Amino acid sequence: MDRRGFLRAGAIASIATTTGTPSSGHRRSLSFLVSPYGHLASNEPLRLNANENPMGLSAEAREAVISSISLSNRYPDSWEGDLYPAIASKIGVQANNVFTGAGSSEVIQATIQALVSPNMPLIVAEPTFEDAIRYSANHGYNLIKIPLDFNAAHDLERMRDETERTPRPSVVYICNPNNPTATLTSSSEIDSWIQDAPRSVFFIIDEAYYELVEDPEYWSAIKWIDERPNVLVTRTFSKIYGMAGLRLGYGIAHPATVQRIKAFISQSSRNMLGIQAGLASLNSDDHIERTIAMNNQSRKIAQETLDNLGLEHLPSHTNFLMHKINGDLELYIRRFYMNGINVGRAFPPMMGYNRISFGLPEEMERWADTLHSFRSKGWV
Amino acid sequence: MDRRGFLRAGAIASIATTTGTPSSGHRRSLSFLVSPYGHLASNEPLRLNANENPMGLSAEAREAVISSISLSNRYPDSWEGDLYPAIASKIGVQANNVFTGAGSSEVIQATIQALVSPNMPLIVAEPTFEDAIRYSANHGYNLIKIPLDFNAAHDLERMRDETERTPRPSVVYICNPNNPTATLTSSSEIDSWIQDAPRSVFFIIDEAYYELVEDPEYWSAIKWIDERPNVLVTRTFSKIYGMAGLRLGYGIAHPATVQRIKAFISQSSRNMLGIQAGLASLNSDDHIERTIAMNNQSRKIAQETLDNLGLEHLPSHTNFLMHKINGDLELYIRRFYMNGINVGRAFPPMMGYNRISFGLPEEMERWADTLHSFRSKGWV
Repeated sequence: MDRRGFLRAGAIASIATTTGTPSSGHRRSLSFLVSPYGHLASNEPLRLNANENPMGLSAEAREAVISSISLSNRYPDSWEGDLYPAIASKIGVQANNVFTGAGSSEVIQATIQALVSPNMPLIVAEPTFEDAIRYSANHGYNLIKIPLDFNAAHDLERMRDETERTPRPSVVYICNPNNPTATLTSSSEIDSWIQDAPRSVFFIIDEAYYELVEDPEYWSAIKWIDERPNVLVTRTFSKIYGMAGLRLGYGIAHPATVQRIKAFISQSSRNMLGIQAGLASLNSDDHIERTIAMNNQSRKIAQETLDNLGLEHLPSHTNFLMHKINGDLELYIRRFYMNGINVGRAFPPMMGYNRISFGLPEEMERWADTLHSFRSKGWV
Repeated sequence: MDRRGFLRAGAIASIATTTGTPSSGHRRSLSFLVSPYGHLASNEPLRLNANENPMGLSAEAREAVISSISLSNRYPDSWEGDLYPAIASKIGVQANNVFTGAGSSEVIQATIQALVSPNMPLIVAEPTFEDAIRYSANHGYNLIKIPLDFNAAHDLERMRDETERTPRPSVVYICNPNNPTATLTSSSEIDSWIQDAPRSVFFIIDEAYYELVEDPEYWSAIKWIDERPNVLVTRTFSKIYGMAGLRLGYGIAHPATVQRIKAFISQSSRNMLGIQAGLASLNSDDHIERTIAMNNQSRKIAQETLDNLGLEHLPSHTNFLMHKINGDLELYIRRFYMNGINVGRAFPPMMGYNRISFGLPEEMERWADTLHSFRSKGWV
């Protein structure tokens, strides 16, 4: 298998997705006319390394894509505007609190660009999702990484100390739940900090996995957007709606903040089919429920497997988890790849851990069998 | 009709596209299983205002989209890499000369961001395509607009004077053919300037309409990329390939320039279906030929209609043209809208002209009939 096979690793999961999830209760739709099989060979590795939704698109989104193909030659700008009221209504804000990007990645990029001033501190956890860090590299930020605390939560106290060290404006990026650790940072402690913080501290709260969290002590930072223009929440259609390939994310903030940041979003970066799939996905409650149920089932398989093998793992509030591997990470990943499964990547400094993304339950069983076979060989 | 109807204006053209262009010579494909009709009402206005390709996607691209829907839940990054060698092979450069964006708009945005230093001159024609101007507003450029010359070509001499006024670095944006005027700027004169220019003058040569030009005196600026890292050419899948809704464009430059600018492209901004449609489109020579033939036919209808009515127009080397309207532009556009046709928008300072985008020949006949009716009412 070559590097492309290694990277792609999506075919089996993709096929399993469509055949494994009967859309009972849905009317027969155009979707059924179309082959559910991707163009990749079915012997490519499982893709348990990218925090995707293995259920794929909802039936509603799939049908929306198909019936919009004939609009593929049209600039999507005016259609894109339909997303604001639709998203706003879904999450309980006003349309002018919302803007979209080509994934929440572009929302984060635009925010980083809009806020920068020379040597502005960008304060992030370590490890955390890399996009804020990646984009800041172009703009002269002073990157400050604060290790996660003993619960693998953001160390808010140390992050706060950094903002108070000098009176200058700073940007704080909080990924909650955190990628790659799948752990929560206390919502009430985030609230306290936002409550106390001067307006010169700008909070990017990344809630990409929001819809998957079931902990009652967790809540969104959206509550702050009316009174705090220094708070931006990012969300995505990539996870709960299974739309990672269609590139649609959004930011939620005070209208003034929306205007300020939106100017840095690329004109028409959101594509017609993603827009239509997004609009349809907002009405796919069945799909959301089934995604959550599937995700919980796959998480259970992962946790039980690791527990049985005595491999420590962090709690998971997302569609992935971090676990110890008792060995070299690169070797571990390569061995899984040689067994037809892509898992994890390096998240320094947690080099003794692997991040496993949850596939369908049957995919997790295959992962579990492989991990057991590694144990019998003394590899983990 | 409300504003949404006014803005959308794509349905009839979209429907006409699919039914009006038999794909003779093509094998029957999955495409035929899918309704060609978009989700918009068929009574929405013609969309002769956005320089789109009314032929829509090629059969190859349409089939690629359909067969890739089941990959919509996968992050597209590793698939996107397939575009570089495919594009490079198509246009005769190396893979490391190419990078992609969510439309050439994002390529222009990234370039503007990558090059900026405070008060850097950005020298553009007036009127010209607005994206370089739009994005520069965020970054402290010193925008310098140089009116088109008497041929509606870029006034290269005056633009050049601006770069020579001070020894500081500057950015020159040349749209060739130019949008909104559809006119050419001499390729040999651009060559002379690039040949003589110091490396501190960076040239963005926007060739969005390259494939539609038939003038033998026109050629691409790609010839410069090996020896001049200060030259970037942008191209798009939006026009010749009918993919405006799928957001895929690219930049062509020296490998060092590619690396420099690519860092400002948003992570994964190119979507899975656009990537697959793009790869397929590169093998759709029939579609290219039919697009060019259709475009020439529609241009002929537009020119003859305007000539018959004695309405002056500029020459067209693209899929649109600029013509005099003998009256108020806003009123003219509104009257066309009331007749079910969206045309043009304001391109200051050419407020006595309208830009008409070419639809299918039957759409152009409807436009012509409407224009004749306006004449009989004394409106044009």
